[in-house]
Amino acid sequence: MSDFLLPRLRALDPYVPGEQPQDKQYVKLNTNESPFPPSPHVLDALSREAIARLNLYPDPLSAVLRQTIAAEYGLMEANVFVGNGSDEVLGFAFMAYADETRGATISDVSYGFYRVYAQLYRVSPIIIPLNEDFTLPVEKFLSQGQLVALANPNAPTSIALPLSEVERIVAGNPDSVVLIDEAYVDFGGETCVPLLGKYPNLLIVRTYSKSRSLAGGRLGYALASPAIIDDLNRMKNSFHPYNINRLTMLAGIEAMRDRRYFVSCVAAICAQREQSAAALKTLGFTVLPSATNFLFASPPGMDGKTYYEKLKARGVLVRYLSQPTLTRYVRITVGSVGQMDALLTATRDILKEEKA
Amino acid sequence: MSDFLLPRLRALDPYVPGEQPQDKQYVKLNTNESPFPPSPHVLDALSREAIARLNLYPDPLSAVLRQTIAAEYGLMEANVFVGNGSDEVLGFAFMAYADETRGATISDVSYGFYRVYAQLYRVSPIIIPLNEDFTLPVEKFLSQGQLVALANPNAPTSIALPLSEVERIVAGNPDSVVLIDEAYVDFGGETCVPLLGKYPNLLIVRTYSKSRSLAGGRLGYALASPAIIDDLNRMKNSFHPYNINRLTMLAGIEAMRDRRYFVSCVAAICAQREQSAAALKTLGFTVLPSATNFLFASPPGMDGKTYYEKLKARGVLVRYLSQPTLTRYVRITVGSVGQMDALLTATRDILKEEKA
Repeated sequence: MSDFLLPRLRALDPYVPGEQPQDKQYVKLNTNESPFPPSPHVLDALSREAIARLNLYPDPLSAVLRQTIAAEYGLMEANVFVGNGSDEVLGFAFMAYADETRGATISDVSYGFYRVYAQLYRVSPIIIPLNEDFTLPVEKFLSQGQLVALANPNAPTSIALPLSEVERIVAGNPDSVVLIDEAYVDFGGETCVPLLGKYPNLLIVRTYSKSRSLAGGRLGYALASPAIIDDLNRMKNSFHPYNINRLTMLAGIEAMRDRRYFVSCVAAICAQREQSAAALKTLGFTVLPSATNFLFASPPGMDGKTYYEKLKARGVLVRYLSQPTLTRYVRITVGSVGQMDALLTATRDILKEEKA
Repeated sequence: MSDFLLPRLRALDPYVPGEQPQDKQYVKLNTNESPFPPSPHVLDALSREAIARLNLYPDPLSAVLRQTIAAEYGLMEANVFVGNGSDEVLGFAFMAYADETRGATISDVSYGFYRVYAQLYRVSPIIIPLNEDFTLPVEKFLSQGQLVALANPNAPTSIALPLSEVERIVAGNPDSVVLIDEAYVDFGGETCVPLLGKYPNLLIVRTYSKSRSLAGGRLGYALASPAIIDDLNRMKNSFHPYNINRLTMLAGIEAMRDRRYFVSCVAAICAQREQSAAALKTLGFTVLPSATNFLFASPPGMDGKTYYEKLKARGVLVRYLSQPTLTRYVRITVGSVGQMDALLTATRDILKEEKA
């Protein structure tokens, strides 16, 4: 930190991404990536000819990409905003709608970045604890009079809120934006896209990182009323107008168009998830009902941190979150068949060692 | 704009990028892109195998890219920050160092985005007019006690400030960050990289968009003391940690390593610039001495807007800036031989028509 940094920003507690250790090859089940490569159409579109045109700026409006996303959801281009990953979309949303004069309401267990944005933008958020079973106390999120930001399905719990409950929250905050972060919705949640026509305060945030196999391309998007999309574009054009590079734009178009590949990847991940969840339960784990591409699981007879460390020593990385209510759990990405076999083998080994 | 947007942000006047009309093919000399494709090594590095790994997140530290840039300038990784275009780097710098409590000093003619950041971050900037000959009144930039942001060479004037004058400004503001935006420095300016060891308040911003032929990849960087780089990383990690996608990271590494290609492209552009400047002067234009990849030129017997419009009608796009002191000028990117021939042909045609 330099002596020049604004005093207000010295206390910032930045987000810490899942570890990316370089010391050896791990079975990486800690950042919820897809085990599948992007659609073959993405590989074809990012041709040598496309790469040779990188000397030219991308379209600052991302028009074709936004039209392609809109078409997939039966919306218009004016309903779609695109960002450099959904983190950037979230960052612009908090920038537009929350500050020290108008705050934000979030839950105590959710995507950790919401708190960071609050800090960055001078917000003292209202933080509402989840119920003991990790479900959301919906009634506490009504009539907030400020930005409400929720992940559905939630992370790291993997639990989905039914559409009717989401609608109660959106309808219950008519004077403020309700941001529903649907990063994981394709794996079993109910999307609130059908509510868009009815509620001008609904802002849905999505990502290509999970179900579209493009975490490395950095692409997220928002679906909302044209007025909200216009707000986000104003933020973007006041920060960096060319936020989507040419190749990611092409990749995003092709990944969205290839619905068949998308469906098959999602189906394979969901099937693997059910198989892995059952296997862990057989070993005595508590596994929350997942509507995502990860499992939130508590090992028998040890806390989450011990299990995380023992797995890491055996070359398997999962995510441990040190929040007080989560210490019995770890978050495990649903990876490939081979990765999940490695996880189970290491786990059986750990449990055997415990008993000995 | 929605009813939810924070009142403070309703008056924002976002940056307007150079037009990207889709109605027909233009000779595009309006956004200072390189006429050359990226290095062949970039084309090789962005292989099908690299694209197939887009399902995995990029390195959030961008370690290899930062090491590669550092090596080129004889610096350490800790001296380098990378952003999604230099606009993002500038955005984080203003975020870290300027707000309503500590302002910013800029010149009235410079990169238009500095004013936008000021607005976004609640800054009432001190705006210092250039001298009548478009040179910088250096003494007015001393002892500011707040962020000082300058482009060198300046845009859209194309004029470079000697290193000794830059040093006066950096030395003259020991208590605040001096940001020198060297977007165009490779085309003939004197870089202030040699000052880095001496001044912990110096922050140099660079881009891959111009001299490295990667405008479409979106990559910019900062060179500064480790403490300043740490500040920028804190901002990034409070906004979006994975800001550089995998392919742009690879492209940035290869484009920086291929010094021979870089030097040959820059030399060709500078040679073309001198030739085009001479030709325009022969036709009666005033052309400012350019240390960039563009010409700031005033046509004989008409204002800049008329010339811009007549060129556009003939399929040639240049940039016209409506600021009161600039109305006699247009900014013309130095393009390929063919593009510059098209510009001159259209210009001769326009001047002939005027005389008739």
